[in-house]
Amino acid sequence: MEPISAAADVLGDRWTLLILRDIVFEDRRYFRALLTGSAEGIATNILADRLARLLDAGILTRGAAGRGQRARYSLTEAGVQTVPVLLAFADWGRDWRPTDTEAETERRLPVDELMRDLRARHAPDAETS
Amino acid sequence: MEPISAAADVLGDRWTLLILRDIVFEDRRYFRALLTGSAEGIATNILADRLARLLDAGILTRGAAGRGQRARYSLTEAGVQTVPVLLAFADWGRDWRPTDTEAETERRLPVDELMRDLRARHAPDAETS
Repeated sequence: MEPISAAADVLGDRWTLLILRDIVFEDRRYFRALLTGSAEGIATNILADRLARLLDAGILTRGAAGRGQRARYSLTEAGVQTVPVLLAFADWGRDWRPTDTEAETERRLPVDELMRDLRARHAPDAETS
Repeated sequence: MEPISAAADVLGDRWTLLILRDIVFEDRRYFRALLTGSAEGIATNILADRLARLLDAGILTRGAAGRGQRARYSLTEAGVQTVPVLLAFADWGRDWRPTDTEAETERRLPVDELMRDLRARHAPDAETS
């Protein structure tokens, strides 16, 4: 398959991009945080569907929920590497759509630093915060 | 609105991305070329819907069709500047999805050169080919 088509099969979806944004820039790692935190008001069934697709595509993993613990989602390396896609969307949105800079969630970290930071925070043995 | 959300409202759609890919990398400028050229087999009503949205969002313009002439679509500057988004998708797809390099339509031009070339070819007074 052609690369843009192959990527768009997985990432070419508004809700999928917004979920990844919330995980990457807002550190929302739990179903409830993703459900209630998003300014766009994602529906429960859409969130569940998109998380299942992201797990299936190998972009997220889901930690086993222990007794009384909620399952935490982590980015895989494929997930960390969606950061340049998200930043390309952010740049285009900032330049070409009416945006509210107060609403900006994208940290102004250099992209390499952000990705390194995500790798550390999403590593399988990273501490539960 | 937050920039990623603002961009995803317009570009966070698989077919929209594939249409832009075909315009940018395959120089498909006419409805029929976009309909019949795409390897993904876009349906007539979906193509018409997505083109209308791209016109509405100011990403494409549509040349007035003269007698016996079909209307040609052109990228605006906002459209030319979707190239980094498309290339971010291409990079991610190439790295993380099963892809067929023979099917690659992305030219290996430097991004600035590609965008300059698109600006010239899509300018309002550019020659009809």
